Amino acid sequence: MPSPVRPTTIVHAPRLAERLGVDLVIATETFQQTGSFKFRAAYNLASKVPQGHIVTASSGNFGQAIAYACKLLGKQCHVVMPATSARTKIEAVREFGGTVDLIDVNTISRAERVQQLADQYPDAYVASAYDDDLVIEGNSSLAHDLVATGLDFDAVIAPVGGGGLTAGLVKGYHELGKAIQIYGAEPALANDAAQSLRAGHIISNPNEPQTIADGARTVSVGIHNWQWLEKGLAGIFEVPEDDIREGVRKLFLFANLKSEPTGALSIGALLQPRPELQGKKVCCVISGGNVDPSVYAEILQSIS
Amino acid sequence: MPSPVRPTTIVHAPRLAERLGVDLVIATETFQQTGSFKFRAAYNLASKVPQGHIVTASSGNFGQAIAYACKLLGKQCHVVMPATSARTKIEAVREFGGTVDLIDVNTISRAERVQQLADQYPDAYVASAYDDDLVIEGNSSLAHDLVATGLDFDAVIAPVGGGGLTAGLVKGYHELGKAIQIYGAEPALANDAAQSLRAGHIISNPNEPQTIADGARTVSVGIHNWQWLEKGLAGIFEVPEDDIREGVRKLFLFANLKSEPTGALSIGALLQPRPELQGKKVCCVISGGNVDPSVYAEILQSIS
Repeated sequence: MPSPVRPTTIVHAPRLAERLGVDLVIATETFQQTGSFKFRAAYNLASKVPQGHIVTASSGNFGQAIAYACKLLGKQCHVVMPATSARTKIEAVREFGGTVDLIDVNTISRAERVQQLADQYPDAYVASAYDDDLVIEGNSSLAHDLVATGLDFDAVIAPVGGGGLTAGLVKGYHELGKAIQIYGAEPALANDAAQSLRAGHIISNPNEPQTIADGARTVSVGIHNWQWLEKGLAGIFEVPEDDIREGVRKLFLFANLKSEPTGALSIGALLQPRPELQGKKVCCVISGGNVDPSVYAEILQSIS
Repeated sequence: MPSPVRPTTIVHAPRLAERLGVDLVIATETFQQTGSFKFRAAYNLASKVPQGHIVTASSGNFGQAIAYACKLLGKQCHVVMPATSARTKIEAVREFGGTVDLIDVNTISRAERVQQLADQYPDAYVASAYDDDLVIEGNSSLAHDLVATGLDFDAVIAPVGGGGLTAGLVKGYHELGKAIQIYGAEPALANDAAQSLRAGHIISNPNEPQTIADGARTVSVGIHNWQWLEKGLAGIFEVPEDDIREGVRKLFLFANLKSEPTGALSIGALLQPRPELQGKKVCCVISGGNVDPSVYAEILQSIS
C-alpha cells in the first residue's frame, strides 16, 4: 500500500514576508493527515513495529495521529488522556479509531496508567510521542519533502517541544547531504531545549510549563532527539507568549492560514530582530492546525 | 515571464467528508495570490488588454487581485472603494500597489465614479470583476488545474456571485472535453442566479442583498457569464445564511481551513440533503479566504 503520508503544503505570503524581513516560504503540516506533522511519526512507527497493538499517552496531536495510523494498518490502539481534555480532542481520537482511556490526573499519572495498560496488554508496543527513533525517522520525511520542492532554503525554522520534529529535520537533511541551517523555535516559558543547547546536556523544566503552545509543554527533549539536536541545530529561538499569539494572528491576516499556537512558533520567532536571517530564504514550518475554536477566536480578537 | 498564478491547493478532510456524505475533495483558492481565485481573472485581464492603466470598482477580492496583477505587469490601476470599507481591505489594495479611490456612496455611486475616472483617463481599461470574457478565460484555468490533479470528480461545486468563477469552470471543462456536473452554490438571500436558471433569462435582485457572503452580493450575473451558466450548469444550490456560517465552522473544525463566508458556500450547500450527490466524488471549490478577524471570530464562537 502506498504511504498515506501527504506531502507538505507550500504557501507563499509576500505581505507576511515583507513584515518579517526574510524571503519567506511556509511549509504547513496543517493539512497533513489528522492535521499535524505527528502523522509522519505515528504512521512510520505503527507500520514498523511488529506489535498489533499500541499504547500511548497524548492529549494532543500524537493521539489522533497514532489512532488513525493504527486504523489504516488494521491495528489496535489505546490513547491515555486526562478526563479534562477538550471534548473535541477526545472525539477526534475516537473518530480516528482509537480507544480513549480517560484518567483523573489527580489520582494517577499518565505514565502510571500507561504502565498499567502495558502490564494488562503485554503484547502491546508502548509509544512515546517524540522519544523514539521510529518517530524521528518518520519526521525526517519532511526534510525530503522540503528538498523535493526544489526551493533552495538558507534556513528552516520549526517548533521544538520534545524535539521530534527538529530531530527529524536534522536527520533528514543529514541523510540527503544537504547543508542548511536548522533552527528550533521554543516558547520562552518552556525553554528547556534552549537551556540544554547552552549547557551541552539535557536540562528539564521543573514542571509542565503553561505556555499557550500546548504542543511544547514537554518537560524536556527526548534522549533520542537530543543526539540529533546537539549536533545539528544552528540555534533555538525563545519566543515570548505574545509573539506566539501574534504569529497566529499574522498567519491568519497575511497568509490565510489557520495554525495552532505551537504551529505558529516559527513565525513568532521572526517577530524579534534576527540579523542572521535578514534577507535570507527562510522556510517556516507550521507544525499543526488543531486548535479549539474558542482559543483561536480569543487570539484573533486581540487584533488591534 | 512564467505565469504567477498558483496552482490550486488540494485538501483532503475525511472527517468532513463523513459528515457531508460525499467522497469529498477540497480545492482551495485561499492560498492563491492575494488570497482568492480572483487573481486568475485579474492577471489574465491585465496581461491581455493593451492599456497600461486599469480602472475598476471593488471593495473585495477583485480590487486586491487587479492591484497586484498590475504591479507585477508594471501597469497602473485605480480601485474605487466606499470610504466605509474595512481598513484592512483598503490597506491590502494599497500594499498590492493599487491607487485607492475612496468615495462616499451617499453622494456618488461606484459606477458613476468609475465613469468619471474613465473620462479623466481615456486611455484606461475599465474592468468588471466578473462580466468580461477575459475574466471568464482567466478563471477557466481552475478547471485545468482540477483536471491536472488526476482525481476524477463526478461533480464540482463552486460559489456563484456574478458568475465569473462558475462560468470559468464551465468554459474550462468544455475546452478540455470533460463531462462533469458543475453546480453553483449561492446564498438563498441572493438567489438571482438560481431564479435566472429557472426562468431561462437573467433575473436581478431588487437591490444588493445583505448576505454574510459578501462576495456574492451582486445584483445579477453578468451577460458574458450567463451564456456559459445557462448551458453548462447542472444546477444551483441555494444556501441559507446559517449553513454558510456552519460551512465556515466545519472547514475550521474538520479541514483546518480558514475560509471567508463566500468561500464556504460550496460546503454549506452540502449541509442539506443532496440525494443526487450522495456517495459521489465531489470537489468543493473554496473561492477565497479574506475575511475580517472580527467576523471570523464571531462565526467561530457560535460553535456549540
